[in-house]
Amino acid sequence: MTVKRPDPVAVADAEARALAISLMQTHHAALAYSDAQTQTPGISRIAFGLDPDGVPMALVSGLAPHTAALRANPACALMLGEPGEKGDPMTHPRLMIRAMAAFVAPDDPQRAALRAHWLKGHPKATLYIDLPDFAFVRLMPQSALLNGGFGKAFRFTAEDLR
Amino acid sequence: MTVKRPDPVAVADAEARALAISLMQTHHAALAYSDAQTQTPGISRIAFGLDPDGVPMALVSGLAPHTAALRANPACALMLGEPGEKGDPMTHPRLMIRAMAAFVAPDDPQRAALRAHWLKGHPKATLYIDLPDFAFVRLMPQSALLNGGFGKAFRFTAEDLR
Repeated sequence: MTVKRPDPVAVADAEARALAISLMQTHHAALAYSDAQTQTPGISRIAFGLDPDGVPMALVSGLAPHTAALRANPACALMLGEPGEKGDPMTHPRLMIRAMAAFVAPDDPQRAALRAHWLKGHPKATLYIDLPDFAFVRLMPQSALLNGGFGKAFRFTAEDLR
Repeated sequence: MTVKRPDPVAVADAEARALAISLMQTHHAALAYSDAQTQTPGISRIAFGLDPDGVPMALVSGLAPHTAALRANPACALMLGEPGEKGDPMTHPRLMIRAMAAFVAPDDPQRAALRAHWLKGHPKATLYIDLPDFAFVRLMPQSALLNGGFGKAFRFTAEDLR
């Protein structure tokens, strides 16, 4: 028994894009991935930022299960906009991005610039950013969904998030 | 190039179990699932609670992509313990639970008791709890990982979370 309703998801307008861009200014995210061994869903909190071109990226530890998972299967999803303890968490806006992980090699010529850029937003990362098992990974958006609460959902193309 | 280190994940002790149980008292969670069509990872925020026996559960809308996904493939993962805006989000404790979704049928004899129990923790749900496309789904823990910050990780069996 299902109620017939119009498509609840609208194409993103300028206001929705502005909200999505503001949600991307966060320093942490929830990451969904497929487990490297079992292929079942896994979830982790990751340190999140944008590269100098505005592309989502993370700094991940080689000890974390999501790092092995993303190396085995780069398809993943991010959720940005965690609500904290105040207000109704289900009406707090959040952006869900479907992404493909692309690791930055330790000898990538861009790594020094990414490292300097990351430390501006994550100064405490100086403690571990140069450990050899830590790596940058770009999370290239494929599409996204913005949920601003019941009845306020918008879909985005990869281009909309630039 | 990888640094050899001891296993960074310990078996849960009493203190870790108490922290995990306290993180389960939240009213929202991040849910990782496999998309029903593409099998790629998806992520959503869900309204979260415990049933009268302490089993994780959610109230989900038939319009949400995770509902179709969980009906097609019940393997999923939950993250509890969202950090809000204060402090270092990567040291904020969070519990990651690998779970199997089990939907509660509309005519399940337990539904009335679950409905009354849910409304105690989620009073605003009166607005939509009886819409025919909303459903309760139990998220049966298979295993869990507690991360209390760098160097403080514990693994749990399903029994540890009871």
